[in-house]
Amino acid sequence: MRGAVMYAPGDVRVEERDEPQIVEATDAIIRVSAACVCGSDLWPYRGIEDLEWPAPMGHEYAGVVEEVGEAVETIRPGQFVVGSFWASDNTCETCRAGYHSACVDRVPMGALGAQAELLRVPLADGTLVATPDLPADDLIPSLLSASDVLGTGWFGAVAAEAGPGKTVAVVGDGAVGLLAVLAASQLGAGRIIAMSRHEPRQRLAREYGATDVVEERGDDGVARIKELTNGLGAHSVVEAVGTQESMMQAIHATRPGGHVGFVGVGHGVTLPGMELFWSLAHLHGGPAPVRRFLPELIDLIWNRQIHPGKVFDLELPLAQAAEGYDAMDQRRAIKVLLRP
Amino acid sequence: MRGAVMYAPGDVRVEERDEPQIVEATDAIIRVSAACVCGSDLWPYRGIEDLEWPAPMGHEYAGVVEEVGEAVETIRPGQFVVGSFWASDNTCETCRAGYHSACVDRVPMGALGAQAELLRVPLADGTLVATPDLPADDLIPSLLSASDVLGTGWFGAVAAEAGPGKTVAVVGDGAVGLLAVLAASQLGAGRIIAMSRHEPRQRLAREYGATDVVEERGDDGVARIKELTNGLGAHSVVEAVGTQESMMQAIHATRPGGHVGFVGVGHGVTLPGMELFWSLAHLHGGPAPVRRFLPELIDLIWNRQIHPGKVFDLELPLAQAAEGYDAMDQRRAIKVLLRP
Repeated sequence: MRGAVMYAPGDVRVEERDEPQIVEATDAIIRVSAACVCGSDLWPYRGIEDLEWPAPMGHEYAGVVEEVGEAVETIRPGQFVVGSFWASDNTCETCRAGYHSACVDRVPMGALGAQAELLRVPLADGTLVATPDLPADDLIPSLLSASDVLGTGWFGAVAAEAGPGKTVAVVGDGAVGLLAVLAASQLGAGRIIAMSRHEPRQRLAREYGATDVVEERGDDGVARIKELTNGLGAHSVVEAVGTQESMMQAIHATRPGGHVGFVGVGHGVTLPGMELFWSLAHLHGGPAPVRRFLPELIDLIWNRQIHPGKVFDLELPLAQAAEGYDAMDQRRAIKVLLRP
Repeated sequence: MRGAVMYAPGDVRVEERDEPQIVEATDAIIRVSAACVCGSDLWPYRGIEDLEWPAPMGHEYAGVVEEVGEAVETIRPGQFVVGSFWASDNTCETCRAGYHSACVDRVPMGALGAQAELLRVPLADGTLVATPDLPADDLIPSLLSASDVLGTGWFGAVAAEAGPGKTVAVVGDGAVGLLAVLAASQLGAGRIIAMSRHEPRQRLAREYGATDVVEERGDDGVARIKELTNGLGAHSVVEAVGTQESMMQAIHATRPGGHVGFVGVGHGVTLPGMELFWSLAHLHGGPAPVRRFLPELIDLIWNRQIHPGKVFDLELPLAQAAEGYDAMDQRRAIKVLLRP
């Protein structure tokens, strides 16, 4: 089968890979209907993070089950399924508490290479959620988004306790930030402030429910949020970038007793304890337990109540994966969908 | 009137100070029945923090109202009252959200010098809570504790979401840590692990509801907590020290999705963003909004359901304040009560 493999920073090739086989009795093999390039795939692409080269790439996926191991009980061949970027058993104490991304049996899907025609999914019964039927083709981008960016933005909004009566600010206008806006809106937030200086992203943010857009960043951005919130700051702030500046912007833009939900992966971030102390903010985040939200998200997508797939502004055949990486790296695309 | 004044690190004197007067129409003057020395008073005493010398000392107080300003409506002369170490209006949006320590009109009581015979309390209606009647003398230490250490330990336990079905660990066996144990017990936690290597403090922790004591610190302490919690870590961890080691110990001892409540003032603490990210812990803390809890705490004390005053293991007349500072500095006492 064909799959994307990164050989070195900047060097992505689509080549023949061995077909995945059932290894554990709890595995499933799926035929990937759509995969995509993640912002986090750009770290090794940019040489910021090392992989064991050559590395199969991709951890977001939706597709049709081809085969299941003999211990798989609920997932069946022929079903259309979506899973998270962590495989999880969905039965351990940590999963039952809703933290599937820290499942005691978790397996990172990134190592298995979802940017491919076929994919092995460990812990299939725990990891995969089936749609009610085979989806219409136009639903596939949205279903794929649930695998990571939608689930991650949703977790950011939940961690920030977005909800009715709350003013929510979102730091970051990538796919995750935009979908955190959508999530905040679905969770009932009355006022949603998107922090963005890119016109097409501002437009999508407004479509997803943003009531205000703030273009300023850093201290100026914080000052604008305070102006918009009676001098107090937002109740809920989602941090969807993962830099020192964006984290501090999020904490400073939060009112005392408010909540910061951070889902940007904090490379090189250090938080000053005293500032955190005096902020009186709540802080929660980390790798999103997407599996917790999948049934609800699939339902919303299936019923066409939300359209998260709009974050994919470039669709390419898998064979052109290298072009997809380049488009994301050069910021020509928010998010690239790959069709095997 | 007599009051304690710090002239320099290590130099506390009790001397004649001007009697406080009503300055704002919302002020009250109280005759202090009991005050005390706080762990935070030791920073300037040890030369770690600078004050404007000479500095009147003390921010914890309980006493009888002598006089009120003309705008004071609910507090009356003759009432026995307890207030927080922050004066707060109890009416602004931040107070209504329960974050009185960030009240938009807040005044730090530390600047006014509660280790004295008389004390001016700003925003009296918002700040002070009256007891049902004049208290029996043996209740006064417990009522005084509500002014800071009990309220702070309570906030730590609330911030850590201690409650039924939860395993709670408490890092720190000072007065605040011990009272966080008491709070966790009152909040219904089934299992409470006190981290302490001092036998008298272990004893008080057990009296307050600790079911386990862990003597190890740092990584060893974390390993012990994991052993006691099925390898996962505690649901709730209260951090009541404020050092780098204690903060990291608290975060590492918390299970994914668990809650850290931190009330130690984090001098020089920096939190690594990546560790926080992967921990999936909730973090909340800061200067405790004691006023939020005062009515409930006074009620529990009044009805002799809790005995937080036991943390005062040394009682001195105000005239011997210097001895009290020395006893706390040299760790001969957990907490020193001063009787004016």
